[in-house]
Amino acid sequence: MTNKKIIVIGGSATGPKAAAKARRMDEFAEITMFQKGPDLSMASCGFPYYVGGFFDDRNKLLCTPTGVVRDPKFYWNAKGIVARVNTEVTRIDRENKKVEFTNLETGETGSQEYDKLIIATGASPNMPPIPGVDLQGISTLQSMQDADYLRKVRDDGHIKKAVVIGGGLIGIETLEALHLAGIELTLVELLPQLLTFLDWKMAKLVENYLKTKANVITKNGVAEFVGENGKLTAVKLQNGTEIPCQLAVVAIGVRPNVKLAQDAGLKIGELGGIVTNEYMQTNDPDIYAAGDCCEVKNIISGKNVLAPYGDLANLQGRVIGENVIAGDIAKFPGTIQTGICKFFDYAVGITGLSEEKAKEAGFNYERVLNASPDKPGFMDGKLLITKLVVEHKTRRILGAQCLGPGDVSKQLAIWATAIKGNLTVDDMVNADLPYAPPFSLAIDHSIATAHIMENKLRGIFKGISSVDLKEKADRGDDMFILDARGADEYEQMRLGIGETLIPIGKLRERLHELPEDKNKEIITFCKISLRGYEAAVLLEAHGYTNVKILEGGIMAWPFDREK
Amino acid sequence: MTNKKIIVIGGSATGPKAAAKARRMDEFAEITMFQKGPDLSMASCGFPYYVGGFFDDRNKLLCTPTGVVRDPKFYWNAKGIVARVNTEVTRIDRENKKVEFTNLETGETGSQEYDKLIIATGASPNMPPIPGVDLQGISTLQSMQDADYLRKVRDDGHIKKAVVIGGGLIGIETLEALHLAGIELTLVELLPQLLTFLDWKMAKLVENYLKTKANVITKNGVAEFVGENGKLTAVKLQNGTEIPCQLAVVAIGVRPNVKLAQDAGLKIGELGGIVTNEYMQTNDPDIYAAGDCCEVKNIISGKNVLAPYGDLANLQGRVIGENVIAGDIAKFPGTIQTGICKFFDYAVGITGLSEEKAKEAGFNYERVLNASPDKPGFMDGKLLITKLVVEHKTRRILGAQCLGPGDVSKQLAIWATAIKGNLTVDDMVNADLPYAPPFSLAIDHSIATAHIMENKLRGIFKGISSVDLKEKADRGDDMFILDARGADEYEQMRLGIGETLIPIGKLRERLHELPEDKNKEIITFCKISLRGYEAAVLLEAHGYTNVKILEGGIMAWPFDREK
Ligand SMILES: Cc1cc2nc3c(=O)[nH]c(=O)nc-3n(C[C@H](O)[C@H](O)[C@H](O)COP(=O)(O)OP(=O)(O)OC[C@H]3O[C@@H](n4cnc5c(N)ncnc54)[C@H](O)[C@@H]3O)c2cc1C
Ligand SMILES: Cc1cc2nc3c(=O)[nH]c(=O)nc-3n(C[C@H](O)[C@H](O)[C@H](O)COP(=O)(O)OP(=O)(O)OC[C@H]3O[C@@H](n4cnc5c(N)ncnc54)[C@H](O)[C@@H]3O)c2cc1C
Ligand SMILES: CC(C)(COP(=O)(O)OP(=O)(O)OC[C@H]1O[C@@H](n2cnc3c(N)ncnc32)[C@H](O)[C@@H]1OP(=O)(O)O)[C@@H](O)C(=O)NCCC(=O)NCCS
Ligand SMILES: CC(C)(COP(=O)(O)OP(=O)(O)OC[C@H]1O[C@@H](n2cnc3c(N)ncnc32)[C@H](O)[C@@H]1OP(=O)(O)O)[C@@H](O)C(=O)NCCC(=O)NCCS
Ligand SMILES: [Ca+2]
Ligand SMILES: [Ca+2]
Repeated sequence: MTNKKIIVIGGSATGPKAAAKARRMDEFAEITMFQKGPDLSMASCGFPYYVGGFFDDRNKLLCTPTGVVRDPKFYWNAKGIVARVNTEVTRIDRENKKVEFTNLETGETGSQEYDKLIIATGASPNMPPIPGVDLQGISTLQSMQDADYLRKVRDDGHIKKAVVIGGGLIGIETLEALHLAGIELTLVELLPQLLTFLDWKMAKLVENYLKTKANVITKNGVAEFVGENGKLTAVKLQNGTEIPCQLAVVAIGVRPNVKLAQDAGLKIGELGGIVTNEYMQTNDPDIYAAGDCCEVKNIISGKNVLAPYGDLANLQGRVIGENVIAGDIAKFPGTIQTGICKFFDYAVGITGLSEEKAKEAGFNYERVLNASPDKPGFMDGKLLITKLVVEHKTRRILGAQCLGPGDVSKQLAIWATAIKGNLTVDDMVNADLPYAPPFSLAIDHSIATAHIMENKLRGIFKGISSVDLKEKADRGDDMFILDARGADEYEQMRLGIGETLIPIGKLRERLHELPEDKNKEIITFCKISLRGYEAAVLLEAHGYTNVKILEGGIMAWPFDREK
Repeated sequence: MTNKKIIVIGGSATGPKAAAKARRMDEFAEITMFQKGPDLSMASCGFPYYVGGFFDDRNKLLCTPTGVVRDPKFYWNAKGIVARVNTEVTRIDRENKKVEFTNLETGETGSQEYDKLIIATGASPNMPPIPGVDLQGISTLQSMQDADYLRKVRDDGHIKKAVVIGGGLIGIETLEALHLAGIELTLVELLPQLLTFLDWKMAKLVENYLKTKANVITKNGVAEFVGENGKLTAVKLQNGTEIPCQLAVVAIGVRPNVKLAQDAGLKIGELGGIVTNEYMQTNDPDIYAAGDCCEVKNIISGKNVLAPYGDLANLQGRVIGENVIAGDIAKFPGTIQTGICKFFDYAVGITGLSEEKAKEAGFNYERVLNASPDKPGFMDGKLLITKLVVEHKTRRILGAQCLGPGDVSKQLAIWATAIKGNLTVDDMVNADLPYAPPFSLAIDHSIATAHIMENKLRGIFKGISSVDLKEKADRGDDMFILDARGADEYEQMRLGIGETLIPIGKLRERLHELPEDKNKEIITFCKISLRGYEAAVLLEAHGYTNVKILEGGIMAWPFDREK
């Protein structure tokens, strides 16, 4: 019996993981990994933190936990894997089961046979099709070379103004990184909101916070890169504005690298990614593919999506490593598109479906907002704002978005696991989580979110969104708006949309100040709408028939305030 | 129709929550809450942090998030609840549906009728039945008064040496608090381990860390409190040792306060707590009980347990608040005994069953250890050690223990939610969690734990526990112990149990240094046993038949090391 020949195309995340797992499955397989660039196993997700100066040693992006750089020598010695860097695979010859390659340094070409082929070619950054893209000073943050370039920008300290184009995860992380380098920044986004995978209001809250650090422009694309002597001097927007700058980083999404696969006749999906089955196998049973070059099934909607995430890349690579050796034993179940992003001292993320996506997918859903702290005040608790979406009939969790300076990552991990377990609101209402004051409230933020949702589904919490309330206020609707906070709180901060202050503790004795017409529309709120909720419950008990609570209260109000 | 009369006995966590929820369910119910002590709504769980100086304002333990102290005035104004402090309920008269009470300040007595009664009397600290317990300088940390006393100890700064008796959660939190006050501390535990709800080794790792901060004595009880002029001067242990000290805090567990219930003929369980059904209803349908005074069902084992936790108290209180008004609409499903505790810059906790408990409950289980960081090295990742227990046949998660300076709280929250969802190892192997470098590794620690478990269940990871290896080494068993780390790592730190160093990157070329007898027992390891695992897989491929991996590697080795 001869040894199995395995070829891996791509040496960043998916490829090395598949190769390493294949090696553990079969010590005698002959495994070769081709990598176009000079580096292997780059922690791309760490680029923004290298650029931002969280650490200075470039090798930390490339090394094992004990500090050994994962270069071809490491791959050969520690993993028994041949890693060929600076070598591009130029063609897949399915008939003869071999790949052709070119050494990009020497120009040398060659070919090599496989029994099983793994495509892990990743994705490439999109560039806008506009004049000036070749000017010096325009970059992406996708490759190790990009990271080196932007890190040098930081170290040199010459550049004073930069523009980041694209308000997605990578755009926002890049914004933070360059801000930390002391550069004055503008973020430009073509669409009406940043982070388009979030619902509008959640994204707006992110935008509001980012505006405390940088200029943020939405609903405006880039029309032209303006330069002098081949160097970028400004970015010109579609509305004509020119933003002077010496650097522009483009982060308007990535597209799967599928040319090799496509040329070889492998199936490409509607979204432009390679299509695989749950074994991560393409339509050629000897060719597997995974990571950013592929489409993947969203478990909740059942539809294929592009989900270019490093965790999925690794997990899918591992599935392939098992299957290329042992036959199809491991399945990848799909994604719920869980993602998170740090920006300054905030974080934001999502798991499962947003309201927008739930609507698109045809779900009959309910949604709710919870603005409240992650920990007790005496332990310096920090705000979290969670938006939960559940299916109405089954009450199962469809998705959660969370943002704030609080512990967002834990909240999302809880909801992601709940979605995995098909949990309902009712399961979460009495969940048994690890409680101690340094880590959470006695009723964890996630459980409180479930409580509010339970109340809403039961009809005892009738919410109104800030968007709807703002619209009504702007229109001058006849309604009574009740702020249930204390007078001191009102002095410090208030919406200023015609509200009347009656502190919750005075409400029972001041009921006569409310409209005589018990059918009149009343909106209650407070800082987070907990007291707003109590006020609404109280008013309903006293016969008011049309009371709504401003969801998330002042903390989740995305518009300007009077104070 | 007359208003419903509701009486609540106990005004700390369960009682107020039940009362507050009942109010929201019925604005016109007459709700009275009796509280023996002077304070209401004390955040008992925050006592250690007040004593430890994390904050200085005592009111923070008693107030709403906006700073209003929850005193009788607050309860009346904001919640429409009559709160009678310093008033003890002395008898429940079930026949006439009333309670008798005594005002502890005035001596006045009275009685009051109820339609529904809620017992939330909590628990009292155990005291050892030994001489000297009445000496000045002996305290517990259970009541607000205890917290005041120990905080005064901190503020006065006179006390130099103290002993904490009992190595449970509260004992350890108290140890930290007093340590932060600059006091030299000794922790005394009667049993062979601290934190008895953990498995021995996990508890031992906690103990090892605590020993860097204080003296820790296990397997030794307190025999006597020694004093002079009515003041504590030393604690005498069962083995005769005397530990000089001016303060001793007893934290040897709590017992449910059930006298009232027992006298009224309500059912008390084998463990000494009030027994309720899932509506939190006692055997008298008009009397509900919850919180520390009750027993509660462990969802996994199906057996009743005592679970005196603040989160459960609140959740159960909420369930009662619904049921006393609306009839039995809400069920409390039980507990999985999830708990967590901070100690200095570490945390430790558990959810579900420990190995010991799984064994007791008759499960056929598998267990595994994962020692690895929570985040990438370049983001200053910190160690986590997780022990996972699963049922063998169904592969479902039974329990997880976690400790370390890393993000323990998130790990436990993930596993608690996984248990709630009846998830299996296989579900967790490809979980989709929120990944970005500031928050986790690309393969989150929890997922890596599932991977190792999958490998173990599949037979490709054959583990040996440190306890077993230590025993074998002490006994001088004939085995080959292989340390797969680098030479530099070996120089810095090593077990010194007769191991041979062969770095993983050299192993393939140095196979001849291994025993000729391929059936000889070989144990592999590294810092965390990742390279140890790779070495084992490699050796098995080369025909070695008896290779085991030291689970958790050096990081989880609980015994002394050579270096
Ligand atoms: C700045 C940044 C931040 C990110 N942050 C996060 C985050 O926080 N969380 C998260 O989940 N994800 C994040 N990601 C995404 C994550 O890095 C990717 O999902 C992951 O790297 C995908 O791995 P891959 O191996 O499939 O593709 P890639 O990493 O793109 O690797 C593919 C490799 O294949 C090589 N290649 C392509 N074609 C050929 C060929 N013909 N021959 C030889 N080699 C070839 C390429 O040169 C490349 O090195 C981030 C990405 C970036 C750029
Ligand atoms: C120091 C400390 C740290 C803790 N840390 C944590 C933690 O980190 N996480 C966690 O989950 N839990 C923790 N706990 C446990 C948590 O505080 C309890 O589970 C919770 O307080 C129980 O609430 P309860 O209302 O049922 O009982 P209790 O809080 O004990 O309240 C019962 C109240 O009833 C009163 N009472 C009793 N009998 C009568 C009567 N006859 N008439 C009138 N009043 C009466 C008592 O005086 C008492 O105020 C901690 C506890 C302590 C002491
Ligand atoms: C690291 C990389 C080379 C994969 O190699 P790998 O050998 O699979 O490395 P890992 O450390 O992930 O895991 C090794 C094995 O040890 C196991 N393991 C991990 N921790 C362990 C522990 N404490 N004890 C025992 N085994 C452990 C893992 O489960 C895995 O085994 P399995 O897959 O057979 O179950 C590849 O993921 C890579 O190049 N990553 C860097 C780039 C990247 O991920 N970028 C995207 C995100 S920024
Ligand atoms: C606080 C306490 C008085 C309970 O009173 P409460 O009115 O139920 O207070 P909470 O703040 O918990 O919740 C109020 C309501 O607002 C809801 N709520 C919370 N955050 C909200 C938000 N952002 N928007 C809308 N509603 C919100 C809750 O769901 C709850 O309603 P529900 O129970 O009807 O679903 C009681 O728990 C207590 O005394 N706690 C202190 C002591 C203690 O817990 N000790 C043990 C641990 S240290
Ligand atoms: Ca993810
Ligand atoms: Ca708990």
